[in-house]
Parts: sequence; structure tokens; C-alpha cells
Amino acid sequence: MKIGLIGAGWIGEEHVKRLAGRVTGAEVVAVSDIDPERAAAAAAIAGARVVDTAERLIADPGVEAVVVTSWAPVHAEQVLACIAAGKPVFCEKPLTTEAADGLRILDAEQARGERLVQVGFMRRYDAGYRQMKAVLDAGGVGVPLMVHCAHRNPTQPESYHSDKPMVDTAVHEIDVLRWLLGEEFATVQVVVPRSTSQRFPHLVDPQILLLETASGARVDVEVFVNCRYGYDIQCEIVGETGTVRLPDPAAPLVRSEGRASYAVVQDFPSRFADAFDTELQEWVDSLRSGVPAGPSAWDGYAATVVANAAVEARRTGGVVAVDLPGRPAFYQE
Amino acid sequence: MKIGLIGAGWIGEEHVKRLAGRVTGAEVVAVSDIDPERAAAAAAIAGARVVDTAERLIADPGVEAVVVTSWAPVHAEQVLACIAAGKPVFCEKPLTTEAADGLRILDAEQARGERLVQVGFMRRYDAGYRQMKAVLDAGGVGVPLMVHCAHRNPTQPESYHSDKPMVDTAVHEIDVLRWLLGEEFATVQVVVPRSTSQRFPHLVDPQILLLETASGARVDVEVFVNCRYGYDIQCEIVGETGTVRLPDPAAPLVRSEGRASYAVVQDFPSRFADAFDTELQEWVDSLRSGVPAGPSAWDGYAATVVANAAVEARRTGGVVAVDLPGRPAFYQE
Amino acid sequence: MKIGLIGAGWIGEEHVKRLAGRVTGAEVVAVSDIDPERAAAAAAIAGARVVDTAERLIADPGVEAVVVTSWAPVHAEQVLACIAAGKPVFCEKPLTTEAADGLRILDAEQARGERLVQVGFMRRYDAGYRQMKAVLDAGGVGVPLMVHCAHRNPTQPESYHSDKPMVDTAVHEIDVLRWLLGEEFATVQVVVPRSTSQRFPHLVDPQILLLETASGARVDVEVFVNCRYGYDIQCEIVGETGTVRLPDPAAPLVRSEGRASYAVVQDFPSRFADAFDTELQEWVDSLRSGVPAGPSAWDGYAATVVANAAVEARRTGGVVAVDLPGRPAFYQE
Amino acid sequence: MKIGLIGAGWIGEEHVKRLAGRVTGAEVVAVSDIDPERAAAAAAIAGARVVDTAERLIADPGVEAVVVTSWAPVHAEQVLACIAAGKPVFCEKPLTTEAADGLRILDAEQARGERLVQVGFMRRYDAGYRQMKAVLDAGGVGVPLMVHCAHRNPTQPESYHSDKPMVDTAVHEIDVLRWLLGEEFATVQVVVPRSTSQRFPHLVDPQILLLETASGARVDVEVFVNCRYGYDIQCEIVGETGTVRLPDPAAPLVRSEGRASYAVVQDFPSRFADAFDTELQEWVDSLRSGVPAGPSAWDGYAATVVANAAVEARRTGGVVAVDLPGRPAFYQE
Ligand SMILES: [Mg+2]
Ligand SMILES: [Mg+2]
Ligand SMILES: [Mg+2]
Ligand SMILES: [Mg+2]
Repeated sequence: MKIGLIGAGWIGEEHVKRLAGRVTGAEVVAVSDIDPERAAAAAAIAGARVVDTAERLIADPGVEAVVVTSWAPVHAEQVLACIAAGKPVFCEKPLTTEAADGLRILDAEQARGERLVQVGFMRRYDAGYRQMKAVLDAGGVGVPLMVHCAHRNPTQPESYHSDKPMVDTAVHEIDVLRWLLGEEFATVQVVVPRSTSQRFPHLVDPQILLLETASGARVDVEVFVNCRYGYDIQCEIVGETGTVRLPDPAAPLVRSEGRASYAVVQDFPSRFADAFDTELQEWVDSLRSGVPAGPSAWDGYAATVVANAAVEARRTGGVVAVDLPGRPAFYQE
Repeated sequence: MKIGLIGAGWIGEEHVKRLAGRVTGAEVVAVSDIDPERAAAAAAIAGARVVDTAERLIADPGVEAVVVTSWAPVHAEQVLACIAAGKPVFCEKPLTTEAADGLRILDAEQARGERLVQVGFMRRYDAGYRQMKAVLDAGGVGVPLMVHCAHRNPTQPESYHSDKPMVDTAVHEIDVLRWLLGEEFATVQVVVPRSTSQRFPHLVDPQILLLETASGARVDVEVFVNCRYGYDIQCEIVGETGTVRLPDPAAPLVRSEGRASYAVVQDFPSRFADAFDTELQEWVDSLRSGVPAGPSAWDGYAATVVANAAVEARRTGGVVAVDLPGRPAFYQE
Repeated sequence: MKIGLIGAGWIGEEHVKRLAGRVTGAEVVAVSDIDPERAAAAAAIAGARVVDTAERLIADPGVEAVVVTSWAPVHAEQVLACIAAGKPVFCEKPLTTEAADGLRILDAEQARGERLVQVGFMRRYDAGYRQMKAVLDAGGVGVPLMVHCAHRNPTQPESYHSDKPMVDTAVHEIDVLRWLLGEEFATVQVVVPRSTSQRFPHLVDPQILLLETASGARVDVEVFVNCRYGYDIQCEIVGETGTVRLPDPAAPLVRSEGRASYAVVQDFPSRFADAFDTELQEWVDSLRSGVPAGPSAWDGYAATVVANAAVEARRTGGVVAVDLPGRPAFYQE
Repeated sequence: MKIGLIGAGWIGEEHVKRLAGRVTGAEVVAVSDIDPERAAAAAAIAGARVVDTAERLIADPGVEAVVVTSWAPVHAEQVLACIAAGKPVFCEKPLTTEAADGLRILDAEQARGERLVQVGFMRRYDAGYRQMKAVLDAGGVGVPLMVHCAHRNPTQPESYHSDKPMVDTAVHEIDVLRWLLGEEFATVQVVVPRSTSQRFPHLVDPQILLLETASGARVDVEVFVNCRYGYDIQCEIVGETGTVRLPDPAAPLVRSEGRASYAVVQDFPSRFADAFDTELQEWVDSLRSGVPAGPSAWDGYAATVVANAAVEARRTGGVVAVDLPGRPAFYQE
């Protein structure tokens, strides 16, 4: 599969390395970026051409599928261009920053009549979440009633502002829980503890999202992006007959100096390296057999709607309804 | 220490056995119960006398200290009688069911001018919570910002109704968190997942309490009294620099038939047997050196106010302020 | 039960505190020690009399039962005196240092015709080992084939010499495994790793005991008394259908500074405090109902024979047969 | 890298799939097997040619590197043929069944003057072992003194005989411990528990290998190939200041029906799937930059010598010296 990649920032370059070096059946043939030097550097990794604009890259007859890792506000137009060109597109999350743009993509893809869009929600490819889903689907804990999550980062840069916990961070939980629970969210509320003194005064951190699904399951997500001690992702699903908990990454237990301890992962690229690889490998594999099998444009749209509702919930302090239209038959699974 | 016990139901009989058989420095000399047969059965365990009313037991010159394990609605008058008689009294939780009765006890004890009342919040005596408190107090996780708790029972009888998750069950978390965090609760809210189908239609189960402390720390307490798989108490405190989690009781790991597993405790008497023993032993020990050192009448009152606010919160669906007067100097620690 | 205690060293004083303060149904009425000041100090804890010799204490009509916590080489004569006096005696391990002395005790007790002797192997009273035994006895792992143990101390004083790993340290594993497996040891071998550089050149540390039971189960016991990081007792039994592992003591998991960790206990009094309490409580309780129910003189004798064989095995480097006579019917369970 | 594979049995076919589907930078161009149908089936997976003999495959100018997954007794001649042809060869373990054949390979490779041989000891590529090595190499537990290992399989077929625990099974521990400890083994002994009743009477199972390294570290390896409950690999290294333990594979903790449990892996392909992938990927990557960086012919030879000594040790019941010549400078790292 000959792939063109748009947006050669950190995640773009990571995906170039991944596609060139670890994913089989794919090669990166073209790279574009608004910064030509960055494009050249990423292209050099894969021996790919530099193409000067996203439009030209999408139109390039040598490009069979597109990876969009550009700045989020331009995702919509680039994804729409791919759909117009009839080319499969893998778009990093978020699919769009505005829900209205998501609707335009849904409309365009349905009008085109074939599934072309996959969104980069990599947690669905993490071995731990997949094991949890297997337990759930086998009825191992009964019907889910509650989910308790934590999403903790050691720290974040100054540019990270108080809406990002929802739109950048908890959006991963929003997606993976939609997938695990197999239903949509109906309402969202945000409660705000006293903020940590360890970081910027402007930042509201931690925050806790309280979500309710269509069937009445309740989800709480602690988002704490300056927890200092590590990158730590926790998830426990409580069903009618039992509970299942996401495992910590395997690490040796060391007994030393009075304590038994294991290392906590320090960043998300380490935590989800295998998930990213699996995600792109399965995307490439699925393209050969037809349509992308991963998170769809609908999943990207729904996650944006929920995250945006969470932003509103934090600002208003109230319970906000998630205003999601019915899922089109086109996107049924 | 010669002890008289009022109320020979299950917990009363347990405490008679405990005081007679495992607690040193104490003997049960008198037992009373509205049911004379129950009183006789409990008294027989300890070779104690049966006294026909609570009043006579409290007045008995051979009784140096009183244990109240009667029906909750009569706690207030019995505790007040002990205060009037100047006798130390250990009252099982709740101290009172109505906050107004708690205020009367506070007034009476202050008027008397000596601390006589201890309330039976046994979790403060559990080794795990004490280890957590040691970590907290040593600054091991920094200033607490959030606490995530779960209180799960395998099941409950039909008489257990939808206010009990707050007043009977989560009241333990309410107390132990006041003690761990060293501050009062300011607000409470209750969110309600879809109820489990495994038990009575009349029961709202599970329920989630959302509490805020005076300093702005946020606490969530899942109460799920028909979780079926076991009696499971979870507590994680998230501070500015780390987290600390209540340990599960130690149990052998068995590898067998494809799984590695350990037993989950099935009931609270097993889970907190040692805590109950320590609680009464320390109470008896503290009486010798002066005043009861455990949870005070203030602690009993505060827990009732918070639990009652939680009941109101569930009924109204809103955020309810915890209406607690300033802590009297008499009860400062 | 009125108890006299002989030998007011560290463990003697601990047992005085335990009997006086935590064990019910017992009081310490008399203490003797070759050092009168030590005797006085221990006696003062319990309000007991000081008796000037062990003989007089044993003969004292006010003493109903005796606890022997004296220097090991005099255990034999003191225990024999108790048997002669017809008084129950709890003797700290080892029952005797020489196997021949153990035989004299077995003979005397059988001649007396009643069980009077209990030996202080406290691990049988540890909750973890008891849980393991329950799993074993329920067939949870099938017939035991192998046991892997480790016995680690942070350090030991200079007086600790290279035979002590067997006679002082591994003797606990020797006893608890006889109890867990329900059979005697047949052979023993010792293999010796390069010694740690962290402590005295004269000390062979660590050492590994390799034991074989009568039925052919194999046991390995790592003894490492200068492991530095903590007091750590490990035991895993491998049966025909599964394995069961002794749990670590419950301790909170703390996430901080890049690691998730829990404290390792630092000394055996902390690790086995509850076991010591239970041991003496059950001994006192058993005296009321008749004979001591704990480790018998036979158990003390067998442990000494095995430990002494291990000493010989280390010195010779070969496999040494455990030369144990048939268990007398008197000591069958 | 154009690869020819010799021996299309189970592991051969797995490696074809791996090289064709998950390893980048490699393609399988030729397959040979004594059974032409098996060769054809494996070749079809990769779109490779079938070559009728191993000799022709090695000589084929279109084959740049060779993977040997044939029957162990023919490994030696095929590896020697690759050396003669100057082609890199990846040989599944064991490199040879006879130590003398290993010496011939060492001589041939040295005479050739370039490193061409890598042996398939995949544990060095397992994330858990690599994390342990990082802890060791950073001095996290001090100088290693002891290692405790267990290698357990659920069961084995009837053809599995009593030498296989050493030559097929523990050979993995022999290699990975040589790598972890960075030194050779000096002696080996085998002790034999009573065999499990769960499987064939002809099979001596379990067996315990006792190894001593050149520096005096002691290693015990329990090999239990009919443990029934799962495929379970345990390893704990005890150093002068601490211990480090191989982690179990990450798996969700499920609380259900009175127990908290996680799944134990059931077979070695699942347990080491990632290690196999990494092993072949790193081999392919290393070929590009020059010589194979993984386990060398020396490693394969040393493992065979130790395993064969263990076979002798079991048969004689004694301690057997590992008769290994000095490591040639050619194989120093
Ligand atoms: Mg590729
Ligand atoms: Mg008592
Ligand atoms: Mg006592
Ligand atoms: Mg390939």
C-alpha cells in the first residue's frame, strides 16, 4: 500500500517510522507539511518524495491511501478532499474540532457510498483493553453498570489549557468506553477538585468527567495531567456480577531498600507504542480486503460531540445533554 | 474495666464475645435487651448479669463503662443517660439517626465537661487504613486532591432500602475519609446508575456519592450492595505528587485451571474482624488513662449530618450543602 | 491460667507483654532469670513475682503452666523438670540443641502419660500459612510435589555463625513444611552460593537447603540473612494440578516518583506479631480444655534432627539421611 | 533481505508467516522440506519458491540469508553449509544436539573469519527479561548470588521423554541465564521429586536442575512439563542488595464469584509471540548493518554442553562438571 502522509510534526514523523519500519505491506511514498524542512526530514526516513501541498499529495496518483497528522483545525478539509478523491484516509484524533465539520464528513462519506475514513483512536488496539473487551463480551462480569477511569500525565506544557483535558485527553476514554460499552453517551457533567499547586495557575487540573450512557451506565474519568509520578491509565468496569480492571504494563518487581516496586511508564508513546503499531498494521491490512475496520467517521464525530459537551459542562457547572443524532445505518456494525 | 452492654443483637453479641474473649483489661458484667432471652444468651457468654432495662444498667454501680449496641433510634437517649451518669460510653454507629439528637449529645457532653462518648467507626482501626494514613501524614503523596472509593457487598436483605447506602453503608467511608483527610465535607451529590437486575426492584443500587471537602478535595464513593462477587472495600487517595491505595486483605495466590487467583472476603465481619478487636481494645486501654481516644461524639454527629445530606441529595438530584456548625473547641484534636 | 516464665531476655519479655496485655485467660505470676535485674524488669511489666531459680519457679504451687524462653542449651533440663512436675510447658524453639536431649523429653513425656509440651513454632499460627494449608487440604493444588522457600533477613549480628542458618533460621521452614505437607523429611543437602560481600567474611551466607520428604516431595529453602532490603518470607507449594503462594503482608501500594511500591517488613517481630499472639492465645485456650494442641515435643525433636542433619550436610557437602525413629503412637494426630 | 527457509514444520511455518507478515525488510523467497507438500504449503504463505533440497536452497544465488528450522540432528550440516557459502544463518535451537558438532561449527565460522550464525534463543528478546537485564546492569539488585526459575507447561505429548526437560525445555533458561548473568556455568546437578501421577509413567516429571556459575552463583530451575494449569515461566534473581522478578504477562484482574483472578497463558507461542517477532526483526536489521547481533554459535554450543551435562547429571545422580573450553576471542562481546 503506497501511503502519503500530511503533517510531519511529532506524531507524523512517528507514523512515518512506524509505516516504514514496523508495519508490513505499506510504504510511505509522499510527505507534505506546511514547513518544507519538516516534510523533507520525515520523507528522508522513508525515502519518500516531498509534495508541496496537502491537495497535491491527495491528488497524487502514486498515493493509494492518506495519513492525516496535520494540525487539528485542518483535518476536516483534508479528510473531505480524500473522500472526494475516493482514497482511504487515516486521520489522527480528533477527526474535527467542531462537530459541524464532523457532520460534513459523515454526509460526504455516505454520499460517496463507501467507508473511507478511519480515526486514530489507538486504545482500541491496546492489548489490555482488548482483553477487557473479551471478558465483557464473554459475560465475565455481567451487564456493565459503572466504569471508573483515571488518565494521568506527569506534566503538560504551558500551552495546555483547561479545555484540553476534555478535547485532547479524556477524548481517548470517551472513545474507548463507547467501544467497550457498545453504546452512546447521553449526558456529561464535570466536577473540579482544588487544582494542584505543582503547575501553572491558569490550569484547572485535575478535572473529573461524569458521564451517563444511553442505558444508564455511569462513568467517571479523573483527568490529572500534572500528577508528576508517571503516565498512568486506569480503567475498571463494574458489572452486575463482577469487575474487570485494565492491567498495568508488565514490569519486573524489584525488592530493594525496604520496598517492593515496579516502574510506572512515563509517557504515552511508551505506554501505547504497541497499540499504535497494531492500529496502523490493521488499518493497512483492512485496506487490502476492502474498507477500514477501525474507528469510523461516526466514532470520530461522536467523540467530538461528547468532548465538546464536556467543555460546556465544565464552563456551566451543570449536566449537559450530549446532542447526538441517531447513528446512520451506514455506520452500523 | 467492668462493662455493661445494651442491645444483644448480632453486633452486641459479637462485642460481648470480643470483650470477654479477646480484649484484655475488660469484662462484661451486665447485659440488657428488650428481649430478655437474647439478653440472657449474650450474658451467658461472659458470665454476666442480665439487667432488665437500659436505664438500670447505666445506673448500676457495678458498671464502669457502657457499650450501646441497641436499635439506632434509641442510641441518643441511652448515650445521654450515660453522659448524665458520667460513664464512658461506646456507641455503635450511627451515634444518632437525626442530626438534632446529635447536637443534644454534643451539648450534654460539653456541659458535663469531659469526653465520655466514643462512636463505633471501626475502619480507623483497620491496619490498611492506618498504613494509608501514615503514608499521607508523612507527605508520601502530597496534598490530597481526590479520593476514589468503592464499598461493595455481595447482597443485602429485602429490608435494606434506598437510603441505607448512605446512612448505613457509605457512612463508614464518610467517617474514615474525614479522619484520613483531616477536614469536613462541604457538599454532597448523588448520581444513580441503572440499577442491577440481580436483586429487588425497589432498591436503587448501585449509587455513587460525590463529596467535596472544605478545601476542595473531591471524593467519589461507589456503593454497590448487591455486587454478588464479594465484600470489597476499595480506596485510592490521589495527592499532588502520588497516589496511595488501600490494600486488599492478604490471601494466597493460587494458580489452577488456567487462572491465578486469590479469594475475595465475603462479609464485613471477616474483613474488619481485627479492626473491631483493636477498636475495643484501644477504647478499654484509653479509659484507663483518661478519656476515650477514638471517634468522638463530634465525629458521630458530623457523619450523620453528611449521610443525611446525601439522602436529601439523592432525593432531589442536586448538590446539597452539608450544614455543619463550626467544630467546638471542646472537640479539637 | 497462672503462668511462670523462665528467661527474661528479649523474647521472654515479649511473651510477658503478650501474656499480660494481649492474651486473655492468662496472667504472668512469676518470672525467673539468671540475671535478677532482667527478671525484675520483666516481672514488673506483669506485676509478677521474681523467683530466684528455674527449679523453684517450676515447683511453685502458684504456677500452673510454664513458659521457657531461656538460653537454648538449658531448655532440655527445664522442660524435663516441668514434665516431672506435671505442668504444661511452652518452650521456645529449639526444644533442644542436641537430638539426644529431645529423645529424653519424648521418653519422659510418654512415661508421664500425658501431653505437656508445646514448642514455639509460631509460623503454624500465621494467617498466610493457615490459608495455604486450607488450600492444600481442600485439594486446591493437588498432591504437593515441590516447595520453594526463601527466608531473608536484612542482616544479622557478628555472633551469627554459619550453622545458624539451619538451626536458628531454616528450622522455621523445617517445622512449617512438616506441618503443611504432613510428613517427615528423609534427606537433606546444602548447596552454597558465593557469599555476599556485604557482611562478615566468616559467615557463609546465603545457603540453600535441599530437602526430600518421605514421599519424595522436594523442598528448597534459600536462607539469606544479610539480604539488606528487608525481612522477607516466601513459600510456594507446587502440586500436581496447581501452585499456592504465601502472600506478602498487606501494604498500601504507593505510586510516586516513577514507581509503584509497597513496603517490605523489616524484622520478624513485625512480620509474625499476630502469629505470636495467636500462638500463645491458643496455647492458653488449649490448656483449659486439656492438652496443648500446638507443635508437640515430637515436632520439636524432629525439627532438631533435620536441622542438625543440615549442619552435617553443609560440612560434608553430601546428601545426609535424616535419622528419625518411627513416630510414637503417643504423638500421632 | 531475501530469505530461504529449511524445514517447514510448525515452527518453520510460524517463521514464514512472521517473516512475510510482521517482519519488515525481509521476504521469504525459497522454502525446502523433506516433505514436498509441507514445503509447498509454507511457500504458498509467502509466495516463495519450493526448492527440493537444503543444499540447493543454501546454494541458491537468490537466497541472501537462511533460516534453519529443520529436525535438530541435521542442523549441524545445514549450518556448516551456510558458513561454507558465506551466508548468514538463523538456526532454531538447539544449534546441535551433539557438542562435537557445535565445535565443528565454531571452527568453521572462525576459519571463515566472519560471524554468520545466530541461534534461536528467543527469550533474550522478551520484554520482561530485557527489563530484568536493565535492572541488573544498572546495579539495581547488586551482584547476583542466586536465581530461582520455574518452567512449566500444561502438558507434553507421549514422545516427550525424560532427557527433554534439559535439552528441549531448560535449555531456554540455560541460555537466558548465561546472558543475564554474563558468565558460564561450571557444574550441574539434577534432583528428582516424585513424579506427577497426571501423565505418562515413563516420564520423570518434574525435575530440578541445580547449576553453579563460574563465579559461584547458584541457579535452580524447576522443569514441570505437566503442571496442567498453564504455561508459566518464573524467574527471580537474588543479588547482594535486592531481588528482581520476571513479570507475568499483563492481564486484566477480574473479580467474580468470590475470587480476584487473571488468566495464565496456556502455551509458549502465546507467551513469547512478541519475543519471536522481535528476534527475527532484529536479526534482519542486524544483517543490513553487518553481522548477526543475537545469540552466537558460541551461545548455541555452550547451551548444548550444559544441557548435555544435565542429562548426564540426572542419569548419574551426581554433580557433573560443565566441560567448556575457553571462549575464543572471536566470540567475545
Ligand atoms: Mg512498512
Ligand atoms: Mg476481656
Ligand atoms: Mg492476659
Ligand atoms: Mg517481511
